[in-house]
Parts: sequence; structure tokens; C-alpha cells
Amino acid sequence: MFDQKLGQKAAENLKSVRAKKPLIHNITNYVVMNYTANALLACGASPVMAHAAEEVEEMVSFAGALVLNIGTLSPAWIDAMVKAGRRANERKVPIILDPVGSGATTLRTRSCKRLMEELSITVIRGNASEVLSLAKEGSKTKGVDSIHSVDDAADAALTLAKELKTTLAITGAVDLITDGEKVHRVLNGHELMGYVTGTGCTATAIIGAFLAVDPNALDATTTALAYFGLAGEKAASKAKAPGSFQIAMLDALYTIDEEALKKGAKIQT
Amino acid sequence: MFDQKLGQKAAENLKSVRAKKPLIHNITNYVVMNYTANALLACGASPVMAHAAEEVEEMVSFAGALVLNIGTLSPAWIDAMVKAGRRANERKVPIILDPVGSGATTLRTRSCKRLMEELSITVIRGNASEVLSLAKEGSKTKGVDSIHSVDDAADAALTLAKELKTTLAITGAVDLITDGEKVHRVLNGHELMGYVTGTGCTATAIIGAFLAVDPNALDATTTALAYFGLAGEKAASKAKAPGSFQIAMLDALYTIDEEALKKGAKIQT
Amino acid sequence: MFDQKLGQKAAENLKSVRAKKPLIHNITNYVVMNYTANALLACGASPVMAHAAEEVEEMVSFAGALVLNIGTLSPAWIDAMVKAGRRANERKVPIILDPVGSGATTLRTRSCKRLMEELSITVIRGNASEVLSLAKEGSKTKGVDSIHSVDDAADAALTLAKELKTTLAITGAVDLITDGEKVHRVLNGHELMGYVTGTGCTATAIIGAFLAVDPNALDATTTALAYFGLAGEKAASKAKAPGSFQIAMLDALYTIDEEALKKGAKIQT
Repeated sequence: MFDQKLGQKAAENLKSVRAKKPLIHNITNYVVMNYTANALLACGASPVMAHAAEEVEEMVSFAGALVLNIGTLSPAWIDAMVKAGRRANERKVPIILDPVGSGATTLRTRSCKRLMEELSITVIRGNASEVLSLAKEGSKTKGVDSIHSVDDAADAALTLAKELKTTLAITGAVDLITDGEKVHRVLNGHELMGYVTGTGCTATAIIGAFLAVDPNALDATTTALAYFGLAGEKAASKAKAPGSFQIAMLDALYTIDEEALKKGAKIQT
Repeated sequence: MFDQKLGQKAAENLKSVRAKKPLIHNITNYVVMNYTANALLACGASPVMAHAAEEVEEMVSFAGALVLNIGTLSPAWIDAMVKAGRRANERKVPIILDPVGSGATTLRTRSCKRLMEELSITVIRGNASEVLSLAKEGSKTKGVDSIHSVDDAADAALTLAKELKTTLAITGAVDLITDGEKVHRVLNGHELMGYVTGTGCTATAIIGAFLAVDPNALDATTTALAYFGLAGEKAASKAKAPGSFQIAMLDALYTIDEEALKKGAKIQT
Repeated sequence: MFDQKLGQKAAENLKSVRAKKPLIHNITNYVVMNYTANALLACGASPVMAHAAEEVEEMVSFAGALVLNIGTLSPAWIDAMVKAGRRANERKVPIILDPVGSGATTLRTRSCKRLMEELSITVIRGNASEVLSLAKEGSKTKGVDSIHSVDDAADAALTLAKELKTTLAITGAVDLITDGEKVHRVLNGHELMGYVTGTGCTATAIIGAFLAVDPNALDATTTALAYFGLAGEKAASKAKAPGSFQIAMLDALYTIDEEALKKGAKIQT
């Protein structure tokens, strides 16, 4: 039922992250900085948060991936993201964008579009409305309101990934990942994840860690989401309410081993 | 001994928050953003943190309440609070102000007074010294040093609420809530709450969630504080030290149901 | 094997912090603000975070110690640190600097050197590469790469503390603390501390609390690190993964009593 090869690759990617401990440079929002950093550490990666225009180019030069997250954006931070992103592009450091709240305010939608115009972005991860808000004007991508099933969403994502020439991950009860050619689905996860702030943002950061060790963006993203969703499942087996659940998720990111991930990954191709 | 009608109303307000999932727009301090967002999610509301002048007006237009908290203020953030607050006033979105540290520095006291002059604020929640620092110069409100009992504090709060034409909540071992006419007391709570940073700030945010569903500011504030204090009591029955206690509080906010709140609310009128 | 007098002093310092509840003014990074504040509360101190240039001088005037941490620095925050630090120096409020990432980017190294030139800093705490990056150009201090043992590090720290005329704490598996004359070692701690973001930053803040009650910087720093490391050991006896471990650390900071600290401190002189 689930893709065995990608389950195997998930385990290999996790092993690589733990062996190589890639530096993940995050320019992210205030709300999730602490949780994201703890999740990256629990996963085996090495997080750094740095946003000053004066240092982002130098910092990203050491990084295995650059995570851009607009959750509590301001114009100066977007400028720093562009600066860091340009250097990342020069150095072939993969960039992952989390368009938090894109579509909700003009500033957010415009900032994402600017980042997408000025930078070559490897992966974008968001929920359906965030991701679909990124379509170009006049795009044939279906709006959020026209999406009535996972299959509708998959069609829209495929079209948009082709248009944007990037890998897209639309996360939800089922995660859809597409590079415009193939579509992967990840069925791991648990509904309590929706009661912890920044689980989406943290998934994005974990994708960053996997991108740092796997040049195949579609596979890196898919396997990272399977790992993160499995951590949610493990946490839900220990905790029934969101406070203890968020702590159990960090524990699970640390304790899940390669064997457990290989067996537990629910990836469909 | 305790007010049954307000206990019933607390349960109804909690039910409404969980049913309507109001968006609560927070412009708050860096220290508590994560905990506040998690508490709002656990309660059933939908938090958003956004502070950029370029987007606060658009964001607050979707919101059920606007929470302004000056805990790590800077002049640019206060400007954004004014901008968001004006739009909130136009749209009849209730505003709750948390004057963290007002009275401790001139910047804090002045910033609060500016917010109070430029905006119509529905509720102000703070500790006794913070709230009493907001009295106008020449006001007859007793200073903090002259308060020797809960009754002294109640008198001062009543006078000040009349002067400021707003609802005031002075939280402590006993919470006092007054609209200048009536005084409510909430006896829920636990001393370990004082060992977790931002419990006051989080109480403010929860009041925001209740204000989004209850147009009666006095009742919304009172019932929110009973709910939040009861979560502290439930947490203290599970955890004896502040780390596990803060997590147990998030759990309790999620697991307390209407029946438990109706029975557990300790409100005096 | 371990220094009994310093074990005793650790217990006395902890008792003083809990009795006096000193205000610790932190200008620190976004990632750790919440955890640091919670750790200071659990320890018995009273944290405040305030960074606005308009208020830092007033705020630091009430403080028992000023903690400067450059983890998510920007030029405006460094300016505020200088302003706060000058007032602290005038008022004889001890300053502790955490040079997060110094050596990694030019902005960080320069900012630390500026703080050290413009301010009289009582204690600097970092890891070996951070601390050694602070040596003056042309300094005879060994670089990080030349350090192959704890004894090499001790020699380098001693030389550097003399050069910088401050107390240095280099934390790691063994913590080294030196004022340029004596060298103390702290053997408390646990490897899981490396999987929680901001444990170094939090150690710095706890040193701030101890400096507020003990004018002997070498002893205050040594005893604070023994206390913090012991909390890590206690936490590791309860929790085996980083999520629950970080919570157990806050609990341990709160529950460790003077007797336990006196017995558990592993200080070598």
C-alpha cells in the first residue's frame, strides 16, 4: 500500500541528518523560533536563527539549507530574506519558503511573490490557501474555494508547481507534494498537531534539514513530512492534550530511529 | 457562595469560543508569543500574531478581538498598535490592553496613556501597580502603596474604571473585575502561575477570545479569568513544579469542558 | 574530590536569590526569551526583557544584573545594549555577556568587541570558539583549533581572562571558569542539555542571578554553573529525550534545594 523505496529513503535521509548535523539557517517568525530550533536539534540538525542584513550572507554560506518563513514579517526582514536568498542561490544552498498567511493580507501575498521573483526557491510548503494564493494573476490554478477533495487539490498543486517551477508541499490531513511531474502523498500525522502553534512552520524547517542531505527536492520533502507526521503519531500515543503533545513531539523526533521510520512512513506515489 | 449565573455564562462562552473559533489578533511581546498562541489554540480560538504597520489594519479586520500587550515594546510597535486599534474601533472589534510594566518606566506609562487616548479600549488587564499607574495626573485613585487589602483595591479599581470609562481587571490572588458600576471577584487560580512567565499576558489573550463571543465586557472578562484560573488549579493537581505546570495548564485549557467550568468557576458578585 | 567550600557557597547563593528575588534585566535573543524567563523564575529571580533604547537605562537602574546576549542581534539592539551597559556600569550593576556565535560572522565578532570596549563587563560565558574569538588581534591566545584538551583550554582561558580583565566561563562537558588568576572547573551537567536550544543562554542568565547576590564574580559564576548543571543531571534522571528534558530542567531548577546543591555541586579548584 505504501511506497517501500521512499520509506527506505526516509530512513536514509534521517540517518544522514544525524550523521552530518547540517546547519539550517532560519529567518523565521518570533512565535515559532524556539520550537523550531528545538525540533531541528531533536532531529539531529544544527539550527541557527539570524536575520540582520549585516550578517545573513555570511551566515548562509555555512548552511546546508535556508528556511524563509514570513509568519511575523516586516519589510526589513523581507529585505534580509532576499539578501540571504541571493547568496544561497549563488552557493547552491537550497531554499525553502513557508508563506504563512499568504492570501490573508496584501503584504504577505506581495512579499511571497517578491521572494519568488527574486530568488530561485527549491520548495514551498504551506496549507492549501497559502500555496494557492501564490498563483500568478490570470493563472488557471483553481482557487481554494473550488477545492472539494484531495484530488482537486492535487490537480491544482500540479498545475501550480509547473507554473512556479518549484516543488510544492500542501500539508493537511493528507500532505501533497509535487514537482509538477509527480505527485506524492503522505498520510502520516495526527489532528492534535493543529492545536500546537507552529507545527506547519516546524515541518518546513525539518524539510530544510532533509534538503540539506538529499538533492532530490521531491523526495527530501516527502520523506521529511513522513518523519514529522510519524512523530505526531508517536506523540499522540503518549499525550492526549496539546501541551504534553507538543513536548512528546520533540521527544518523538529524537527517539524515532531509522527502522521505525522505514516501517512507519505512509507515503503513496 | 459563588455566582451560579456567571458560572453558567462561563460555560456558554467557552462553548461559543470552541464553536466559532474566533481569530484573535495579537500585537504582543516576544517572550510570550509562543505560549499565548498555544493557549489560544488550546482554548479553541485561532491566534494570529502580526505587527507590521503595513498589514495590521487588514489583519484586524478579520479578527474577533485585538490584544495589545506592551511587554517588549518599542516605539514602532506602539505606532502599529495605534493603527490596528483605530481600524478595530471602526469595525467594532473589541480591544484589550495589557499594560505590562506600566509604572516601571516612563516609556511604558506614556505608551499606555497614548493608547488609551487614541483608542477606545474595551478592557485593560494588569496587576495592581500596572493598572493604577494608568490613573490620570491629579486623579484621586489611591496609589499602589496605599492598598492594604482586596477591598482597598476594589475601591481604587472602581474609581479608576469610572475615570477611564473602560472595564478593568486587576489580577492577583483574587482577581477584581469592574466596569465602574459593578465589581466581580474571581477566586480561581494557583500560586504556581506566578512561576510561569506570561501567565498574565496569556490571561489577557484568553479574555480576548471571550470578548470575541460575549459583548458584555464585564462578563466576558470575569468568565475568561475563571476559566483561566481553573486551568491553573487543574494543572496544579497534576504538576508540582513550574516546567510541568506550564504544560499541564495548556492541557487543562484544552480538556476543561463546559460542565467542569460551570461547577469550578469561583465568581463572586 | 570536590571543593566543599564552594559547594556550600553555591547553596548560600541559591538561598540568597530565592530570598532577594533580584530583578535580572535581559537584552537577549528571540529564540530563548521565553525559556530564559521561565528558568529565572524557577530559580527564584525576577526576569525582565526590555530592549528599547528609550527605556533600557531606566529599567537597568532597578536591576541586580544585566544580561547581554547577541543571539539574534541587529545593530539597533547592540546600541541599546551599550546604552543599558553604560548605566549599569555607573550604578555598579554587574554585566554578563553571552557572545552567541562570535567568530561565526563579522557582525557578531565586532559587536562583542564593541561591547567589551565600551563597557566594563563582569563575566563572559560562551563555548570555546565563541570565547576565544574575543581575543585581541595579535593576541597570544591559542585558537580553537589548537585546543586538544581541557588543560589546553584552561591555559587559553587564563591568558585571555588576563588580557580582557574579566571573568570568563567556557562551558562544555567540563566548564572552566577563570578570573585570570584562579581556574575553577565544574563537572556537573548532562549531554541532553546540548539538544535543548538556549541552554547556554539560560546558563548565562542564571549566572546573572547569582552575580546579583554574590560580588565575587568567579564564585558567583562557578556556583551558578554547578546549580545549572545539577539541574541537567536531575532532569536526565526523569527524562530521556529533549522535549521532556527541557521541561524537567525547569522543574529541577525549582525543586533543587540548598542541601541538594551543596551535596551535588561538582566543583574543582
